[in-house]
Amino acid sequence: MAIQIPHIIVGRLPLYLRALNRLQKDGYEYASSHELGKLLDISAAQIRKDLSHFGELGKRGIGYEIEFLICKLNQILNTDNVWKMIVIGAGDLGSGLTRYKGFLHRGFQVSAIFDIDPQKIGKKIGDLIAKDIRDLEEYVKTNNIQIAVLAIPAEYAQDVIDDLVNAGITAILNYAPIYLKAPQGVQIEHIDPSVHLQILSYFLK
Amino acid sequence: MAIQIPHIIVGRLPLYLRALNRLQKDGYEYASSHELGKLLDISAAQIRKDLSHFGELGKRGIGYEIEFLICKLNQILNTDNVWKMIVIGAGDLGSGLTRYKGFLHRGFQVSAIFDIDPQKIGKKIGDLIAKDIRDLEEYVKTNNIQIAVLAIPAEYAQDVIDDLVNAGITAILNYAPIYLKAPQGVQIEHIDPSVHLQILSYFLK
Repeated sequence: MAIQIPHIIVGRLPLYLRALNRLQKDGYEYASSHELGKLLDISAAQIRKDLSHFGELGKRGIGYEIEFLICKLNQILNTDNVWKMIVIGAGDLGSGLTRYKGFLHRGFQVSAIFDIDPQKIGKKIGDLIAKDIRDLEEYVKTNNIQIAVLAIPAEYAQDVIDDLVNAGITAILNYAPIYLKAPQGVQIEHIDPSVHLQILSYFLK
Repeated sequence: MAIQIPHIIVGRLPLYLRALNRLQKDGYEYASSHELGKLLDISAAQIRKDLSHFGELGKRGIGYEIEFLICKLNQILNTDNVWKMIVIGAGDLGSGLTRYKGFLHRGFQVSAIFDIDPQKIGKKIGDLIAKDIRDLEEYVKTNNIQIAVLAIPAEYAQDVIDDLVNAGITAILNYAPIYLKAPQGVQIEHIDPSVHLQILSYFLK
């Protein structure tokens, strides 16, 4: 793609997709930017501007055809196929994410989970058996995996990132409560619930 | 507070706090905005500007005294005390969050977990016993709880929000993959891992 779309715009596309899927499930065929905006608390003008980066996706006076826009957004977000991903860390969080059924219809599937702890290796987690972290590189290369979810304590995260990148991982969803430097060509997204709780408590009296 | 600080700035304060705690743990006493910036991939100017909203917290040529700034940020974020919070949903995610040890030193503690499913009510989860959702209102009022974590499927989320708000909850961390309208005076933060995965896949080839 010639034009680079800012991260903040890319970050809203999954929200549009999620809302459109819901509208479709509820039986709607068309959605205006105003209707989408109301569902998401984002201004209609912002939605139209965001989507206009990807061509003429709506029709004046009619709005967006939901099925078409879902298809188009999946294409843009590269979720028209299912990505296999690995989870690092077979604790509560990693196990929960591995068993979570909600990823598949959003374009993702956990295909393996790894841990360093001999007590966790070999354990059944959902439909998978936890693997030894020492088998990570071979697994990633053999199965051409690009996405990893990091569900380990902060103190181990940077080391594991380096192993992941060496193995060929280029996209990381990081749950370790630490900022991790992404090497060149690697994308990292961060989720830390305490950060959101602290934003909430800021607004509490 | 007279001046309203934008959400985007408030959202960076927990990251500064997290980085400062790490630096302190590593034995540092002072941090410059440049050092913090490098740890967080945020510009030094941005950090200085964000923090300047809360007074003169650093000294020119010396930087920020870490212990003082940690104390100040905890004060600003209202995390100088521990907030009790409740978790709604005793599935994998809710149970994992209830057992998670990382909240306490960030200012939060799960004091009760609720579910609607008779098979889950009464189950031991970490140090707690899952309670019946029908006891929610009384519990929230008796214990003066303000924060709730929503770990339930999307289709039930809006109904439960209304119950929470009626009970007196004013801050919600929402894990249900749906945008929820916050009633007047209620803050909601959203975490949806699929949104972050779709941002990652956008950047993949």
